[in-house]
Formats: sequence, C-alpha cells, structure tokens
Amino acid sequence: MSVDLVQEQSVTFESGVRLDSGRILAPVTLVYETYGTLNGERSNAILVEHAWTGDAHLAGKRHEADTRPGWWDAIVGPGRLFDTDRYFVICSNVIGSCFGSTGPTSINPRTGKRYNLSFPVITVRDMVRAQKMLIERLGIERLLTVMGGSMGGMQALEWATQYPDSIASALVLASTPRPSPQAISLNAVARWAIYNDPTWRKGEYKHNPKDGLALARGIGHITFLSDESMNSKFGRRFSAKDGLFDFFGQFEVERYLNYNGYNFVDRFDANSFLYLAKSLDLYDVAWGYESMLEAFSNVTAPIQFYAFSSDWLYPPYQTEEMVTCLEKLGKPVEYHLINSAYGHDAFLLEHETFAPFVRDFLSRVQN
Amino acid sequence: MSVDLVQEQSVTFESGVRLDSGRILAPVTLVYETYGTLNGERSNAILVEHAWTGDAHLAGKRHEADTRPGWWDAIVGPGRLFDTDRYFVICSNVIGSCFGSTGPTSINPRTGKRYNLSFPVITVRDMVRAQKMLIERLGIERLLTVMGGSMGGMQALEWATQYPDSIASALVLASTPRPSPQAISLNAVARWAIYNDPTWRKGEYKHNPKDGLALARGIGHITFLSDESMNSKFGRRFSAKDGLFDFFGQFEVERYLNYNGYNFVDRFDANSFLYLAKSLDLYDVAWGYESMLEAFSNVTAPIQFYAFSSDWLYPPYQTEEMVTCLEKLGKPVEYHLINSAYGHDAFLLEHETFAPFVRDFLSRVQN
Repeated sequence: MSVDLVQEQSVTFESGVRLDSGRILAPVTLVYETYGTLNGERSNAILVEHAWTGDAHLAGKRHEADTRPGWWDAIVGPGRLFDTDRYFVICSNVIGSCFGSTGPTSINPRTGKRYNLSFPVITVRDMVRAQKMLIERLGIERLLTVMGGSMGGMQALEWATQYPDSIASALVLASTPRPSPQAISLNAVARWAIYNDPTWRKGEYKHNPKDGLALARGIGHITFLSDESMNSKFGRRFSAKDGLFDFFGQFEVERYLNYNGYNFVDRFDANSFLYLAKSLDLYDVAWGYESMLEAFSNVTAPIQFYAFSSDWLYPPYQTEEMVTCLEKLGKPVEYHLINSAYGHDAFLLEHETFAPFVRDFLSRVQN
Repeated sequence: MSVDLVQEQSVTFESGVRLDSGRILAPVTLVYETYGTLNGERSNAILVEHAWTGDAHLAGKRHEADTRPGWWDAIVGPGRLFDTDRYFVICSNVIGSCFGSTGPTSINPRTGKRYNLSFPVITVRDMVRAQKMLIERLGIERLLTVMGGSMGGMQALEWATQYPDSIASALVLASTPRPSPQAISLNAVARWAIYNDPTWRKGEYKHNPKDGLALARGIGHITFLSDESMNSKFGRRFSAKDGLFDFFGQFEVERYLNYNGYNFVDRFDANSFLYLAKSLDLYDVAWGYESMLEAFSNVTAPIQFYAFSSDWLYPPYQTEEMVTCLEKLGKPVEYHLINSAYGHDAFLLEHETFAPFVRDFLSRVQN
C-alpha cells in the first residue's frame, strides 16, 4: 500500500558547497521527503536518487485531493519493495533543479535576482556533495543503500566512489560511467532548441520559452523510448483528424512528442533543464582519476547494476564496462540485464521484474 | 579517373504529373546530368538516385575551378564502378528539391509567386513518376539498373514495383520499406525546429530560416552517424577553446553538429527540406497494396540489397524484411550485410567494400 500523506521538508546550509568548478554555491537549500521511521541504530536509511527532471516527491500524496502519487510510488510503502515499516526512505531534489533546491531559478543573494545563467555549472558529484550534508544533518552516518536510475544511477555511483564509508550498498539502474558522444549529441540539439527560442533571451525570460523547451523535451522523449516500444505504441499510425497529404498532418508518434513536449513547459524550468543536461553530459565517474579502474578502487560497498536491453541512451555495454572493471578489482558486484522493450524508461516501468533481485540483494546487506 | 567537365541539363513537362495525393503538379521541370554515351541498343543506361539533400550533380566538375566533384564521383568515370566507357549514367534531381527541379521554391504559374507551402505534398512514388517521363524522353525503354541509397533506395524500390518492365535490375542500399516510428520521430523534431523559427513564417520567408534549419540538419547528422563512429571521430573531447565549466562550452561533437548545421543553410532550402522529410516519413513500399507481399509480387528484375551494420536510421532488419519477402515470392534477390561503423552514411563511404559485389551482379544482368 501507499504511504500516508507526505510533507515536503527542506534544509538550508548557509555556508554552501564548494563545487567541482572551484566556485562556491551558498547558501544551498535542499528540498526532500522522507517515508517510514529511522531506527534507533540509524541503520535502515535508504536514499533514492531522482533523474534529470525528477523531484523529491518520490511516493505518496501531498494532499487528499492529489490525483497522482509521487514519481516512484510503486516501490515505496508498507509491504512494498522499500517497505516503510522496515526502512527509512529519503528522496532529495538535486541542486540545479527547479523543485525547491537551489538552482538557476533561485534568488542569488548577491544580486537579489534570479541566478539564471549566473548560476554555476554543477556536476553530479556536486549534487551528491550537497546530499551528503543532508544525510549528515539527518544524523545518518551510513546509508543502508542508495538507489537511482539514469542520472540517479550516476549519483549512486558518486556515493560509491566518493563516500565509500557512507553507504553499505548501492543500486545503479540504466546508467553509465559517462554518456557517449551520441547521448551528448542528443542533449546538444535539445539545448540548441532552447537557445533558438527568442523568448529564452539568454536565460533572462519572464515566462518559460515554451516552443524551445517543448521541442527539447520532445527530443528527450525519443531517447527515453525505443524503436521497439514506439512500434508497439504508435506504429506508423497517422493522426485520425489529419489528412495524409496535409502539409501539417502528423503521425501519432509526432503528436505524442508534441503533446508531452508542451505539457513539460508547465512543470519544468528551461534554465534548470539546461544546467542538468550539462551535468549529465559532463558526467564521468573517472573525473579526476587516471582511469575508471582507479576511480573504482575506492569502492567498498557491494553494487547491484541493472541495464535494459532496448536502452539505447545508456546502452547495456556501458554498464557492463563498469561491472567488468569492478570484477577486475575483486569488488562485490552483481549485474542483471533485463530484457525489456521500454528503452531507457524501462528502469521506471520494470520494477516488478527487478524487485525480487533487489529484495535478495538487500537481504544480504549488513549495515 | 573522373569524368570530363559536365553540364547540367533540364527538361520540362508542361502537362506535369498527377500525384498520389490526387493533385496535378504542372509544369514539371527535372534537372539532370548524364555521363558516358547511350549505346545504339539503348541498353547501357544506369540511373543513380540521390538521397534527401542530394542533387543531380553526381560526378565530375562543372567548372575547371570547382574544388569538389559531384556527390558520388568515386563510383562514376572511366574505369570506375559505373564505367563511363561502358555505361550511360543518369542522375536526376527529384521533384520537391531545390536544385532546379520543380519544388516549393519554384514559381507557381497560377500565382506568379513561389509555391512555398502551396506546393503539394509529394511521395517518393511521385518522384519516380516524373523520372519515368525523363527516361522515356531520353529514348530509354529499359534501364540496365537503377541504384540508390536511403531515399535513393526507396526510389529504386519504386522502379522495381511500379515499373517492373522498365528496369533490368536494381540496387538498393541503406534503405527501408517504410521508416520506423523512431525514424519518423527524428524527422518530426527536425520539422519542429524549423516551425519554431520565427523567420520561417509558415514558409513565407525572404531568407532561409537559419537557426531552425541548422538545428534540423544537426538532428539529421546524429541519425546519419553512429554511436561507434561518433566515438572514434569525437569521443567525449571538449572544444579546446572552451572551459569545461563554461555554460556555453561545447563538446567537439556538439561543435561538429553546429558547424555542419549552419553550413547547410547556405545550400538547402527549408521548405524543400520539410517536403522531402515528409516524403521520407510517408514512404511505404506497400502503399496502395494489401501488403508488402502483394507490392513485391510485381517485381521481375533481380534486386541486390545492401544494409550496414551500424545504420540505426534504417537498420538492417528492415532491409532483411524485404529480402525475406522477395525470397518467399521466389524473386531473384541478393543481400549483403556490410559490417561498418559509419552508420547510415556508410552507403556513401563503403563503396570500395561493396563495389566487387555490384560488379559481379551487373555482369550477370541482361538488358
């Protein structure tokens, strides 16, 4: 069952964080939610990391009237995979985002205005640096596990390599040690779509630049799905109300991208989108090390990896590269390649497939 | 060696063509080039079909000062694959294009103004319908072969199914019986990029809408390359003159897309781009038939197919579907899967790999 009504919480660190770029971001506010109860030993905490456009609202409803629960409600709650009768589950909105944590839409204390493009470029490592402060503030020395898919998986990797003593295990889904140039390209054209929008005004907009942001999101959706899932969902069906020979006539898949693109404009900020796209593209687990091997030599916690057969954004071979590297180092690692047609999105949709493996993994983790 | 200086030719059909949409396009002008000499029996003619943004300038130079020869010069000329001492090679610019053949940039005789969006939506079948008139005008009853890659391959398929008596063979490279919804999506976001450009003005622009068209082409380039070729060409290298933490700092692959995108604006018309994108998306070899099987039952000429392992725009399985279907019908068909890292672009780059197979195939064709 679902958790009870939840409340958004927040914490502000006045002294901020020193970023990978060398700049200081201060103050830093993090918005987060928690579910379940921290036990006396403080050993039952699970941190769930969100992806690019996610937020801290992982599970449950905020108000009785809410029509939809949090973004990964299916795995959090009494009796669910992350059983809130046993675990204390935390989800924190990343810095750079637009859902309450400090990001380009926040007020820059030095100017009294929104940061916009004066916000510093941040890395996934910076996001985790801020989260580490939150976890400490919550009085937790060591997380039972940290789990995330896509950008969330990158954050879990950063916990495993940067704060090895602070986690007892990690779960990394549909992620990558570093996005390929093809993945970077697809973000690059999404960025370009926003830059092209004259209402973007180099980030100094009054209203979200809707045409550019919608297109950017449309491009994103292509990368989240797969050839296979598009085939079964839309095929080559043409919109029923359009003529095949109308210049503006649309295929169903085209309408879907359009519809979801414009919907996105109401819920996500264009500058945040750009900053987080940059964080994704810059991501490299081996950043600051000689090699991935050196980066992974820090790892102590067992890591369970999941890749999804039709994920062409962060294809399985990229996860397999990490698994091989960790095995070479003799680290405790487990890998499941899930056969799925859902593409990159599979990590959010295939939880029934992987839940038994996660349960088994957690039953063996000591904290 | 290369052919001598070539001259663009053109022919106009005043009565035009009746299009698949039911509309009449008249007059219809086709721009074309020829290389070599038509023999007395008129049996040595080869038609080479260009892709989306190609033109009639297949081989040789138009002026001594030209720095670059035609787009597929490597395979046309004395001693080359299409040996102009033996063959009479023709290349015709398709209708809908912007290189001299009738398209949206042409003057609509009824208004005295550019067609722009009053130009009718055209299909690949329509392109071939016009070409058939050109071939007749040249006094050729039956082509020795018709060859094309990508949209050129679709045209070759239309010759094989719509004019089976007019070809003695066909060569189809990196093509598809119908683009998948993923391929359609990628064209859809390219279209969207142009629609978003305020200077496009629903096709009534004075100057090519450069930001939108450049982005559209940038998206196209992603589909022409492969994860593999991007990896070896760019990797994750960052532009040397940009800082890693500059908001507008670019990866090399991003610069490449940008550079090639803006270059394209100088040579291709945005409305033509949109009309041809539409022709590609609408393409279905079985259009007007119950099935692909029924469409292919018309085929008499032997067809040689090529697919390229890393082509994710029109992946090998789509070519293989056609090969299987033709085999089921007992038609003469040959298939080569070429192992290549170059993605969709491979068909233009791997000619040395496939030339021996083409030579062998042609040596067995009787006209």
